[in-house]
Amino acid sequence: MSAKERYIVGVDLGGTNIVAGAMPVDGSREIAMHTTPTLADTGAEAVADRIAGMIEQVIAQTMTETGATRGDFIGVGIGAPGPLNREKGIVIVTPNLGWKNFPLRDEISRRVSLEATLDNDANCATLGEFWCGAAVGGWNVIGITLGTGIGGGLILEGKLYHGSSDVAGEIGHTSIDANGRRCKCGNYGCLEAYASGPAIAERAREALRGDEGESIMVSMVDGDQRKITAQTVYEASKRGDATAREVVRETARILGTGVANLLNIFNPDIVVLAGGVTQAGDALFQPLRAEVRRRAFKPAVQACRILPGALPLSAGVVGAIATFKQQKLGEL
Amino acid sequence: MSAKERYIVGVDLGGTNIVAGAMPVDGSREIAMHTTPTLADTGAEAVADRIAGMIEQVIAQTMTETGATRGDFIGVGIGAPGPLNREKGIVIVTPNLGWKNFPLRDEISRRVSLEATLDNDANCATLGEFWCGAAVGGWNVIGITLGTGIGGGLILEGKLYHGSSDVAGEIGHTSIDANGRRCKCGNYGCLEAYASGPAIAERAREALRGDEGESIMVSMVDGDQRKITAQTVYEASKRGDATAREVVRETARILGTGVANLLNIFNPDIVVLAGGVTQAGDALFQPLRAEVRRRAFKPAVQACRILPGALPLSAGVVGAIATFKQQKLGEL
Repeated sequence: MSAKERYIVGVDLGGTNIVAGAMPVDGSREIAMHTTPTLADTGAEAVADRIAGMIEQVIAQTMTETGATRGDFIGVGIGAPGPLNREKGIVIVTPNLGWKNFPLRDEISRRVSLEATLDNDANCATLGEFWCGAAVGGWNVIGITLGTGIGGGLILEGKLYHGSSDVAGEIGHTSIDANGRRCKCGNYGCLEAYASGPAIAERAREALRGDEGESIMVSMVDGDQRKITAQTVYEASKRGDATAREVVRETARILGTGVANLLNIFNPDIVVLAGGVTQAGDALFQPLRAEVRRRAFKPAVQACRILPGALPLSAGVVGAIATFKQQKLGEL
Repeated sequence: MSAKERYIVGVDLGGTNIVAGAMPVDGSREIAMHTTPTLADTGAEAVADRIAGMIEQVIAQTMTETGATRGDFIGVGIGAPGPLNREKGIVIVTPNLGWKNFPLRDEISRRVSLEATLDNDANCATLGEFWCGAAVGGWNVIGITLGTGIGGGLILEGKLYHGSSDVAGEIGHTSIDANGRRCKCGNYGCLEAYASGPAIAERAREALRGDEGESIMVSMVDGDQRKITAQTVYEASKRGDATAREVVRETARILGTGVANLLNIFNPDIVVLAGGVTQAGDALFQPLRAEVRRRAFKPAVQACRILPGALPLSAGVVGAIATFKQQKLGEL
């Protein structure tokens, strides 16, 4: 019997970047975190090769840093954009990567000769915050990841909830205005149609109509409003720009309406918001919490804390490691 | 060891009526179902006495019908309007009954000398459909009860989900129009503000403005539109009245928007709608399903059946019995 630590490698596959790293099984620390561009247009096989290369790099660095041997690595948890088939380890479709029915889990497992698991990236990010981040100590946790899209993850009674065909948690695609903005998904009034990064930039451009002279956002993009991104809005908001602040406040009201719905449905103890617009800090969270108080049932409001994510760079990797642990070791 | 059947008594406490009955532990049949008026204004103690009297009546009749002895009754499951504290068996507040912090479970248990459990009425109705009704065979089931209010129950991975402080499942109070109709709960655009019985009647009255001469609803209430109820609308719809049909169709679109949100969040395999407006049958369900298809993700739509409840009179009692069984025997 060895008292040596064992390690799990985690991979967070995104449309733009791949992040990978390792942790001891007890989740006590992050080791050898790396980021590399996905280069999705090189194709699924090439991306799988690149992921396998990163895993080897993470293993080598971890061995150097900790004195572990290769036999101390028990497996790889992978987070990828959905929809996917968890049981078979297959990425069914990913618009961002252009993949169809790619057996990512087994392709990686074969390349690095380690067991692997696959789960949705938003689920992983939520589980990462639950295991080692802002949602530690929670029992019913809702994670919302705000970026190019809006993803969601549900931890109910301490375990990831996947639904009947692995597509639960699409919080970004719940409508708060049945006749509102058309969403890319085909529905109307989805949270994502207002509060994703591109939607925030679009609303900023709309807010600037008739108000161009007064906002610093215009000069930040050298007068070319097409260059305004959500990042422009957060930075201008931090610098006190009134138009940008109103865009952030309106984003907070929209997200607050959606979060209030989730409180009345789930009665969670923690809601974690991560990514993109959460960089706006209190300018986002204060009006968001106020909107939730205004709309949700008091007992649900009293039971719940609404928090920014604590692992902005690594939640996906930490959560991928956690899904491996929960699936293969039966505990977290 | 006795091979004799054992029995559980169920009580469904409503603002208007109390329903009670018994079932064998295996849920194979309903026995001695009774309904009596709640007479809430007689006070909590008097209502508890009346419930205890009904339980004794159910036990006596079951003994007569089955040859069981009093020792064959293992307990009482109670469903009551929330919010309530399940662990302590306390009804915290019920606007319909005028109660505050009433220890209903123990008051009943003491009166009939049987163990008792307490759960939310909408949870019970959903569990009843799951155990013996339309949702048999489901794994992730959402129940929606349409009546004076709109209640909801969530069965996730085969078990009732209660949330962090027993107030989960308030599906009626999710907004599908952030700036829509004011709801009694204080929020705007809640499903309940459009699709509860009173809200449907109100929308029918609005639809009649300028259209009085053509709808049979007017003559059905002898010209006094204040007398229009949701029931008036369903009956007129069945008789082919165009205005009533449009009110039902609009109700279907609203509920369909809410159900689509639930599909994207939960990816359930069954959604059961029961009570009130479901009497409209296909006139409700066909446009409702179409609206869900229009709005929800395809994999979530494909995984889910949307069904009318199969236990219109007894779901609450059957589910109260099921909650007792699940809590005390650890299985269903």
